[in-house]
Amino acid sequence: MRRISIPDLDDLALGAAVLGTGGGGDPHIGRLTAAAAMRRHGDVTLIEVGDLADDDLVVPAAMMGAPTVMVEKVPQGDEIVRAVTGLGDYLGRPIRAIVPIEAGGLNSTTPFIVASALGLPLVDADGMGRAFPELQMVTMTLHGITATPMAIGDEKGNTAILNTVDNAWAERIARTMTIQMGGVAMIALYPMSGAQARQALVPGSVSLAIQLGRAIRDARERKTDPIEAILRVTGGRRLFKGKIMDVSRRTERGFARGEATFSGLDADEGHELVVQFQNENLIARRDGQVVAVVPDLITVLDAETGEPVTTETLRYGFRVVVVGMPCVEAWRSAEALALVGPRVFGYDVDYRPLAALSASSPP
Amino acid sequence: MRRISIPDLDDLALGAAVLGTGGGGDPHIGRLTAAAAMRRHGDVTLIEVGDLADDDLVVPAAMMGAPTVMVEKVPQGDEIVRAVTGLGDYLGRPIRAIVPIEAGGLNSTTPFIVASALGLPLVDADGMGRAFPELQMVTMTLHGITATPMAIGDEKGNTAILNTVDNAWAERIARTMTIQMGGVAMIALYPMSGAQARQALVPGSVSLAIQLGRAIRDARERKTDPIEAILRVTGGRRLFKGKIMDVSRRTERGFARGEATFSGLDADEGHELVVQFQNENLIARRDGQVVAVVPDLITVLDAETGEPVTTETLRYGFRVVVVGMPCVEAWRSAEALALVGPRVFGYDVDYRPLAALSASSPP
Repeated sequence: MRRISIPDLDDLALGAAVLGTGGGGDPHIGRLTAAAAMRRHGDVTLIEVGDLADDDLVVPAAMMGAPTVMVEKVPQGDEIVRAVTGLGDYLGRPIRAIVPIEAGGLNSTTPFIVASALGLPLVDADGMGRAFPELQMVTMTLHGITATPMAIGDEKGNTAILNTVDNAWAERIARTMTIQMGGVAMIALYPMSGAQARQALVPGSVSLAIQLGRAIRDARERKTDPIEAILRVTGGRRLFKGKIMDVSRRTERGFARGEATFSGLDADEGHELVVQFQNENLIARRDGQVVAVVPDLITVLDAETGEPVTTETLRYGFRVVVVGMPCVEAWRSAEALALVGPRVFGYDVDYRPLAALSASSPP
Repeated sequence: MRRISIPDLDDLALGAAVLGTGGGGDPHIGRLTAAAAMRRHGDVTLIEVGDLADDDLVVPAAMMGAPTVMVEKVPQGDEIVRAVTGLGDYLGRPIRAIVPIEAGGLNSTTPFIVASALGLPLVDADGMGRAFPELQMVTMTLHGITATPMAIGDEKGNTAILNTVDNAWAERIARTMTIQMGGVAMIALYPMSGAQARQALVPGSVSLAIQLGRAIRDARERKTDPIEAILRVTGGRRLFKGKIMDVSRRTERGFARGEATFSGLDADEGHELVVQFQNENLIARRDGQVVAVVPDLITVLDAETGEPVTTETLRYGFRVVVVGMPCVEAWRSAEALALVGPRVFGYDVDYRPLAALSASSPP
């Protein structure tokens, strides 16, 4: 149990953006709105899944939508709190703790808005250990926990409670509502017990993000390589150093889809890397050969500062290092890969862990 | 107060299809499913709005979607009952009566499924006195009654409770959900008190539909003109006698849109009538001149039998009489025309009542 105060949000937002693999929206915007909420309502207590009582009601809170739109529709705070209280009212039980649904960009900090406003603790965990584009893509799905009852609302005041036959239907219906609501919606879903939270969530994601952000900042202060710091904390590896040559991006069916092409620099001179994304970076190919693939994490970092570059801020000319980081163990089973593996996103390749791809790749 | 039993459904479905102005789906399918429910659960008591206590909870039940899809997805009954009970549970109050939302096709008979299954009376009224394509287009909107809380569900078991900022947003969000749900959804909405029902609803629509159906059947039995019988009951007039030459129809954003062109027969020989529709027939032009326009009713009838032809069953070669019928008085105010007048549907004409158009039209 520890207190998270406003200065911690800088490290959290920075580290979460690394884990966000390009998705989850602009972390700075998330940091600002969470800081505004904490200035008004106070610090947030971070608890561990082990601190939850078996029957505590735990609710993940998040923003849903294309990050390209999210950055233009900063949540004012109230609407996400309303989604959570709306779900609590519907369930008719007091909510005991809030938890992030993913580790990444906006959705690492938005739960702090809710926790602070409602005076509830935040669980140091999440449902992905990274960011994913669709809401059924969480470890809770692997444990039979249902996305619904789910609350969804927009900034205008439209709200709904959904009950769907499975988590993929929750995604499908909520996605179409999100589009109608202007491209962004506030959601509260996967209500679960403390016992379920212990079983299903990825523990330690919030503190990992803070640790990661702090390591980057320390490296910058000590003039050491922040990218080395990231690889040390995450157990990742460098995939490519290059310059962004081309970015194609479109907002399609509520997602930001596209790809970025990098032209090699230094040791990678003469080579090319292509990263494809759907909100998040999903697959990286070096000269046509897969060097990292979902559910492993692929993040584009500014070559000098180690600052993560989200998919919507990729721009021609940026000099970057692309890194790969191993996903949490929960995503490596056959069942998990059927939910979040490369074929789910339309790539005709089998998942191979970073380490295995690394062994077979050219240096 | 009167009992409605299965044989009455024939007249009801027939008469409602005339009032349905081409929309609301195939009345025969609605009749069959309502008859199945009444065989299982018994007859339905039809009450008048005056029979309601001021604080009785009254709930309209309906199908939402394009009739082109409705005819292929016959409701099994349970899903529409579930929508109504879901709304009742959400409101936490017992429902005292069911009411149709519109007079037309499927939606005149589907409320009988609910009333029969739940053993509740059906109010002899509706929210349109005809059929309209969008759910905010009801007399309740004119009286400040909100569409939400609203329940929506599909045959798979997906359900939602919506709360929107206004009735147009309820339409917008529910329409997109309906499309996701496969083109048809079951809805329960506009929960209202008995006092509100008396103020806002169009009284007598159910018994008018039954009276109309019976008049058509009587005329057929007596070998008199069933179309004359329709005009007598509704105060309508013949607009055109012709043969269907061309029908264009597309299912677009959840609606069946299109137009039909009729080539004149007998007295109308050498003339042409064009009817445009969006689920319902909205405007009729004779040789380019408007002869009837929404909110007045336009219905296409088989020239021999007087059987109404719905927009999805219009076919080349049918010999028909197109009739115009005056809408209920509630739709003639400036406020009402801003909700359901021709400009709302994109026609650049002012509403002029049938009688006025008739006076200025050629014979």
